[in-house]
Amino acid sequence: MSKLPEYAKHIASKVDEFIYETVKGSPELLYNASLHYVKAGGKRLRPLITVLSCRVCGGNEDLAVPGAAAIEILHTFTLIHDDIIDRDELRRGVPTVHKLWGEDIAIIAGDTLHAYAYKCLLRALERGAKPESVLRAFNHLIESAIVVAEGQTLDLLLSRKETASIDEYLEMVEKKTASLMIGSALIGASLAGAPPEIENRLREAMKAAGIAFQIRDDILGLLGDEKVLGKPVLSDLREGKRTILVIYTLSVVDEMKKRKLLSVLGKRDASIDELREAAEIIKSCGAVEYADKIAEEYAKKALELINSIETRDLEARELLKELVQFMIRRRY
Amino acid sequence: MSKLPEYAKHIASKVDEFIYETVKGSPELLYNASLHYVKAGGKRLRPLITVLSCRVCGGNEDLAVPGAAAIEILHTFTLIHDDIIDRDELRRGVPTVHKLWGEDIAIIAGDTLHAYAYKCLLRALERGAKPESVLRAFNHLIESAIVVAEGQTLDLLLSRKETASIDEYLEMVEKKTASLMIGSALIGASLAGAPPEIENRLREAMKAAGIAFQIRDDILGLLGDEKVLGKPVLSDLREGKRTILVIYTLSVVDEMKKRKLLSVLGKRDASIDELREAAEIIKSCGAVEYADKIAEEYAKKALELINSIETRDLEARELLKELVQFMIRRRY
Repeated sequence: MSKLPEYAKHIASKVDEFIYETVKGSPELLYNASLHYVKAGGKRLRPLITVLSCRVCGGNEDLAVPGAAAIEILHTFTLIHDDIIDRDELRRGVPTVHKLWGEDIAIIAGDTLHAYAYKCLLRALERGAKPESVLRAFNHLIESAIVVAEGQTLDLLLSRKETASIDEYLEMVEKKTASLMIGSALIGASLAGAPPEIENRLREAMKAAGIAFQIRDDILGLLGDEKVLGKPVLSDLREGKRTILVIYTLSVVDEMKKRKLLSVLGKRDASIDELREAAEIIKSCGAVEYADKIAEEYAKKALELINSIETRDLEARELLKELVQFMIRRRY
Repeated sequence: MSKLPEYAKHIASKVDEFIYETVKGSPELLYNASLHYVKAGGKRLRPLITVLSCRVCGGNEDLAVPGAAAIEILHTFTLIHDDIIDRDELRRGVPTVHKLWGEDIAIIAGDTLHAYAYKCLLRALERGAKPESVLRAFNHLIESAIVVAEGQTLDLLLSRKETASIDEYLEMVEKKTASLMIGSALIGASLAGAPPEIENRLREAMKAAGIAFQIRDDILGLLGDEKVLGKPVLSDLREGKRTILVIYTLSVVDEMKKRKLLSVLGKRDASIDELREAAEIIKSCGAVEYADKIAEEYAKKALELINSIETRDLEARELLKELVQFMIRRRY
């Protein structure tokens, strides 16, 4: 039986404890808004990548926790700002930060978490991480933050274009989604003092895993169960997102279906019937099967790369592989 | 004759060069939006504080430049997000970032600069700064970012209350404005490897100077010349800001004037006549003279503290004092 769910819970509790210990201050309202999504749940996937990468590179779990908390907090900050941009109203089963506190506070709450991500990482020094290792980890954290912002911009720009190519999609996803997964792994590796060769292999593995994860996310946005997901389905269509499903569909269907789909994409006040009709066009042309196949290919590549890393902590390597498999088979 | 204007220009050019060398990437649109205010001008006061503090603590100018660029970029990020929150349309004589690119891109552009602030500082390693010094400077930069966010929140919360006390105002200003000035000085001091005793004195000096600076800003927001300022006057009233002028006025005028002023404060669609009438109530009750006096007291305290720091670089200490004097006498 898989040890992953139990280990994930164990790490989540350590990371959460570290977050609550670090992210605190006044005014209370700002901290309530900032920690809203942390309290609401979440999978804590990225912290798990950080901890397992650190272990694979010979470091221990506790050394990785500040880095794991840092990347989770960075991720949470991007969710708060993304939700404003996407005008989403639900996340992790709770109303979004801007719905509850208004956009002004949501902007500031995101900024607050962004700064606290660096603060979490700085605290690795208290656990005996070397200054040089912490600075290398900082470089990865900063790079992730920058590249995510570039990816969010590409995402916005793509949704304003009529068509997008798979290559444009992959570039966007690599930046918007995979960069945080890459950062998660490299922060763990840096804190363990891993050599550049291992970092490069982890980078390539997490790039592939991150793309597979996003493709799965695109599919769940079409076929997922809202109650399990904790966020609305079909909102990608309303927001005009160029998901891999949309790009594939636009490239294979006839002109009439293409026009129909384009007329709904990005239509903020689209009715549920219009959204369902658009979803039907996507489902019936084989886009889901296509996307599934691509996701499997990326996941396979990630698994091979992880498998090629030599380590004394075989258990950590196995758990990291299981995690990648979960990323493309998850239902939430 | 004062050497300050010439030295300020010299440092601004070094800092700008460093910024343009560091803050670059794609998509182009994101970088255009992010660098919009940097290109539009600005006083580069905070970089000057960083460089002069570094010199006072025995470090050299070039060692301080990455830290100076970091704090300027952090400041610029807060301006982009502040302008969205305050719905301002003009800054440094140009349309605000969200007016030109929309709020979505403006949010992301601010986030991008926030991350680049840390990247700028990290590059101090290339100039021979010790890892431990860079990590101490990081701590100050992170602290500034967090405290500014707390201050922005207090600013919003105060503007939603009918009255505020001077103490509440001072707490808000210390967090919203002074914290970046404090961070500017402490980053410079850290990069120079200054002892904690000197850091504490700089912290107190910059806290006082920052409060004086903000009081001057409040006054310019009432009496300033739009063309010189590069941003609209009287918008503080429209936004309902609890400036020191408003707080003083509400505490001294009769009930009728108080009601009149409160009816305009925070009224987004207030006419220019209503704003002028409110401004007249403030001017005629002696609020400006009161605020001027308080600003002078804080500036005096800052000057005394700076003067008490022993240094071999007497020129830098004189320039830092001149800078504080400029901060409360400036017309823009």
